[in-house]
Amino acid sequence: MGLQSVPRSAAPAGVQATARMQTSGAGTDGRRRVLIEHVRPEIDGGRFPIKRVVGDRVDIEADVFVDGHDVLAVRLLYAEEGAPFVEVPMVARGNDVFAASFAVPRCGRYRYTVEAWVDAFATFRHGLMKKVAAGQDVRVELLDGGRLVAAAAARAAGEDQHLLAALARELEGELGTMQERAARVLDEPIAAAIARHPDRSLSPRHARELSVVVDPPEARFSSWYEFFPRSCGRDAHGTFADAERMIPYVVELGFDVIYLPPIHPIGVQYRKGRNNTLVAGPGDPGSPWAIGAAEGGHTAVHPSLGTVADFERFVRAANEAGIEVAIDIAFQASPDHPWVKEHPEWFHERADGSIQYAENPPKKYQDVYPFAFDGDAWLPLWDALRDVFLFWVRRGVHVFRVDNPHTKPLSFWEWCLAEVKRIEPRAVFLAEAFTRPKVMLGLAKRGFSQSYTYFTWRTTKTELETYLGQVTGGDAAEVMRPNFWPNTPDILPEELQHGGRPAFLRRAVLAATMSSNWGIYGPAFELMEHVPRPGSEEYLDNEKFELKRWDLDRSDSLRHVIARLNRIRRENPALQANRNVAVHRTDDDFVVAFSKRSDDGESIVLTVVLLDGHHPHGCWLDLDLAALGVADDETFQVHDLLGDGRWQWHGRRAYVHLDPRVMPAQVFRVRKFVRNETGFEYYT
Amino acid sequence: MGLQSVPRSAAPAGVQATARMQTSGAGTDGRRRVLIEHVRPEIDGGRFPIKRVVGDRVDIEADVFVDGHDVLAVRLLYAEEGAPFVEVPMVARGNDVFAASFAVPRCGRYRYTVEAWVDAFATFRHGLMKKVAAGQDVRVELLDGGRLVAAAAARAAGEDQHLLAALARELEGELGTMQERAARVLDEPIAAAIARHPDRSLSPRHARELSVVVDPPEARFSSWYEFFPRSCGRDAHGTFADAERMIPYVVELGFDVIYLPPIHPIGVQYRKGRNNTLVAGPGDPGSPWAIGAAEGGHTAVHPSLGTVADFERFVRAANEAGIEVAIDIAFQASPDHPWVKEHPEWFHERADGSIQYAENPPKKYQDVYPFAFDGDAWLPLWDALRDVFLFWVRRGVHVFRVDNPHTKPLSFWEWCLAEVKRIEPRAVFLAEAFTRPKVMLGLAKRGFSQSYTYFTWRTTKTELETYLGQVTGGDAAEVMRPNFWPNTPDILPEELQHGGRPAFLRRAVLAATMSSNWGIYGPAFELMEHVPRPGSEEYLDNEKFELKRWDLDRSDSLRHVIARLNRIRRENPALQANRNVAVHRTDDDFVVAFSKRSDDGESIVLTVVLLDGHHPHGCWLDLDLAALGVADDETFQVHDLLGDGRWQWHGRRAYVHLDPRVMPAQVFRVRKFVRNETGFEYYT
Repeated sequence: MGLQSVPRSAAPAGVQATARMQTSGAGTDGRRRVLIEHVRPEIDGGRFPIKRVVGDRVDIEADVFVDGHDVLAVRLLYAEEGAPFVEVPMVARGNDVFAASFAVPRCGRYRYTVEAWVDAFATFRHGLMKKVAAGQDVRVELLDGGRLVAAAAARAAGEDQHLLAALARELEGELGTMQERAARVLDEPIAAAIARHPDRSLSPRHARELSVVVDPPEARFSSWYEFFPRSCGRDAHGTFADAERMIPYVVELGFDVIYLPPIHPIGVQYRKGRNNTLVAGPGDPGSPWAIGAAEGGHTAVHPSLGTVADFERFVRAANEAGIEVAIDIAFQASPDHPWVKEHPEWFHERADGSIQYAENPPKKYQDVYPFAFDGDAWLPLWDALRDVFLFWVRRGVHVFRVDNPHTKPLSFWEWCLAEVKRIEPRAVFLAEAFTRPKVMLGLAKRGFSQSYTYFTWRTTKTELETYLGQVTGGDAAEVMRPNFWPNTPDILPEELQHGGRPAFLRRAVLAATMSSNWGIYGPAFELMEHVPRPGSEEYLDNEKFELKRWDLDRSDSLRHVIARLNRIRRENPALQANRNVAVHRTDDDFVVAFSKRSDDGESIVLTVVLLDGHHPHGCWLDLDLAALGVADDETFQVHDLLGDGRWQWHGRRAYVHLDPRVMPAQVFRVRKFVRNETGFEYYT
Repeated sequence: MGLQSVPRSAAPAGVQATARMQTSGAGTDGRRRVLIEHVRPEIDGGRFPIKRVVGDRVDIEADVFVDGHDVLAVRLLYAEEGAPFVEVPMVARGNDVFAASFAVPRCGRYRYTVEAWVDAFATFRHGLMKKVAAGQDVRVELLDGGRLVAAAAARAAGEDQHLLAALARELEGELGTMQERAARVLDEPIAAAIARHPDRSLSPRHARELSVVVDPPEARFSSWYEFFPRSCGRDAHGTFADAERMIPYVVELGFDVIYLPPIHPIGVQYRKGRNNTLVAGPGDPGSPWAIGAAEGGHTAVHPSLGTVADFERFVRAANEAGIEVAIDIAFQASPDHPWVKEHPEWFHERADGSIQYAENPPKKYQDVYPFAFDGDAWLPLWDALRDVFLFWVRRGVHVFRVDNPHTKPLSFWEWCLAEVKRIEPRAVFLAEAFTRPKVMLGLAKRGFSQSYTYFTWRTTKTELETYLGQVTGGDAAEVMRPNFWPNTPDILPEELQHGGRPAFLRRAVLAATMSSNWGIYGPAFELMEHVPRPGSEEYLDNEKFELKRWDLDRSDSLRHVIARLNRIRRENPALQANRNVAVHRTDDDFVVAFSKRSDDGESIVLTVVLLDGHHPHGCWLDLDLAALGVADDETFQVHDLLGDGRWQWHGRRAYVHLDPRVMPAQVFRVRKFVRNETGFEYYT
């Protein structure tokens, strides 16, 4: 039904028609019959871009349909920002779903949308084939077809035009027998020639253009090592030159991002003493997050660390070792920050003329002045803050850890991060927001490349399984990339306070295998620092407020296990993304098992972790074989990349034994059995 | 943090600011810090309205949040079409979700959106209370508060202005002790007065206005009875006067909508004979769906049925008996339709000048001409088709069954149905689209009030349970109202061909209790007509092509059971909507159990149906007691409204016994045990 046998000219316009189109939602013409809905992925109706990394393919689906049974032509349109759209045919997947994909070879933004139209000739050809097969008289149909061919000829040029015009004349002149004419019009090359010149005058485009932000690979796969350069000195306050000596150590541990707490001059007024006391002692260095002093603010370097040039040298040295340097951007000022005098209008003024310090009543943080992001002077302030990022971009930094972004307007971040990425498309931003779920997701939507997570407090089997699902599934996974940290200078979780070596090991394994991004605050982590300030989740004698001396060569250090974990991550692509995650049932509430599989199916890693730090457990796994890409009756090998043991498994039930005093986890590479050309059998 | 202690004047405008706002997505000002997301219900980003019926409350939720910890004021804005917004405070439900609701007392369209702002005084007051409680010096805070009070006074008028201005002066003048001033500013009436005059200069509104279409109650709860008036004659072609005699029968059966197949003149050319044969015999009446003859088209009445005035009389008689009359709108023409001559431009012309008939190659339907909805003359054609609806609206019809809407452009329906509803807001449209799921949903989104469904072919336990979930849950349930039909003149499903009386009974019970809208094609259904044209799902000697004589008084008629089913539906509000549906596990693959509960929890109906038509089954149910509103340790009564038996149940395991030769279903009213004031215990 509704067969459109004649190409049509433009509709009569007019007020009445316009009203009709608006009411019908049909865009510019009520005759646009094709409907395009639910182009996906799509976040909040296209309000926010999805995220990918360089080298990905972006898979797009859309629901496209029309009344009746006409044949549709559906195109994916995509473009790098600033470039014109490229078209890709979308393929019908059944149930009115069409699919196509495009590659994103460069950092930056791409946009995509979908366009579709009724393919009148394909519809005609489809019907004609059936009628011819049924031996019907198709003389009138061939004349109808002649009109379609003539119309296509009018749209064509060159050889196609020649070919189609000739055929149109044949059909119009009723040359040859009916059978001959039918054969001519059903000819494949004719269909191809007409498909090259479709009538798209009534082809609707999806109402929205969607976009994807393409980040460098380290936005999705990265291993972070945080340390305080000031603790790297041999006898005194460490310098960037001292910190350079840490680089080989970090390389040995296998991390690829060094993250430094703020490197700026530290305020003197209201400086905090050791253990966060209100009054600093004479030698106390203060918290690096109390930014700004006489020597400068967010674009200066603490004099005891060195100069900006020293910092640049450190960055180069790290880069040469294959490591990116991330700095900490904390948008707040100490009372001594130069901006307090230069730009009092960038802060909140109290009624007595003083500047409003941070507070969480009744607590006061008199060493910290928040910026007035929504003050009268917001425009120059926002510019200045963006320029802080750009200053460090020019010094070789493109990875930023952003402090407490959830206490600044999200509209600021959306603008600022986009501005920075416009200049440095490789920029990566890690949001340090431990706050309510919707605010964390809101920050991710507005441009943060990675996010700290609740992993730090997810410890039981149910919590871990649920959380793994939350961070790897659904719309959230399109915008929010988790970065799992077992500890930070701010957080010594209870699990690590009391759990001893097994707790440190299992938290490292969980973080490094559940999430493609992970990080530790070292050397506190690998040296299993675990004493809290009583009744708190904070470290006793916290490095935030004093210099520390770490004995990296201590015999009980976890450095070798961590090095192995990072090597496993590098060598197994399955662990470099958070897709194709599956949780596997186990018969033991203290044993959690989950797997990841690379998109090409080649890399499969199954992690099994014992959550009981005290007793050995033997346990049956109930494997989801489909998720592992293994057939029900297939024998396969699991190779524990941590302990180097190998087992042959068959079927979905498998037994594991874990002893927390030895190693509370197994990270299995799943190896499939293959036979080579000479008949020799081996595991991949 | 980010405490905003001073009300601010407008920001400096300018090109730079504008660019910033666009990039930041912050609307007109980067200082709009509050974020409003995911206002719901929302269909396709607000592209389509949700649906409710008169008397409903519309529950709205939104995610609203701001950086930091400021106190938010959130308002739901709603309005009847054409009226200004009314505001309702939204209440925090935790996790940044805010909720409110509004009533929809009239048919038509309402719109809604959300607005929110930082409540600077409430934030200040919250902090001040904590500081006062901690015994801190708050002298500067009180001056800050004075500024807020003065600003509120400037926005206020009348008594509030007087009150606030006086307090501002007290605070500014530092009159009285600090404690006295603090008590004054913390005074509840002051907070209330300030809340009446908020600073909304930076309050963002949700980017979209959403809408709800409010239909008459019968859009959600209706029982349809379809019959052919031409079969109601005593010895000849029935008339509307004959059909009037059916009204008491339909009342007895408890239906509230009579649906008549097309009542128009029937074409003569290519008229179909009995059993859909290509050539009609001399006495064959033809298919009512071959619309139009010399006597007229879509606004005429078949002369053998009577006149338009006779039809109006029939409608009045039905209305007086409490029944609505639905007519069939089939937008297609027989070759004899007056429009074929008057408006050949409303049809597709073939190359030989003939008009294109309907076809599904190689099948030809030469008795049916489709309209050219996307032809050059689409504008006047669309008007004429809309006028068909309006013609019958003026004759007392407001319920329409629309034939094959999926073969006409969906943009046409969106426009046309809205146009009709603009004139007759009570209009109800049932879409007869048995087609692909996305097209069916697409029609519902574009204005159809009810939809035929796949129920007709859902027969196994798994199919029924899955389908019940699909039609009652998720976004689809916001726009698509199912209408369950066990049979239609087009469909005699296999289940009814071979299943005998138990099959008819169980299909009636399933349709009438699963869906708040149901219907049957009678008297074929209650008389258990079950012989198909061989190898088909069509009735043998189909009433579509011939007059029938039905013996309504046959002793095996299901009329009494159907009457009871419809009475149960009327008396139990749980069955008048499709919300609060729960499927209950049973220990038998042939026993399906599901319940519905009214929003107020007063009406609870549990339906248990045996799908085996041959053998009695005893079966344990595993009840979802929470869904029934029953406590784990509560004794409750179930009252089978079909068989009138009563049982006391306790706990989640309950036993049922069903004999298909007696009645293959039980429809239990769940009665809770209550104690009245005198201590007498009884079941509700």
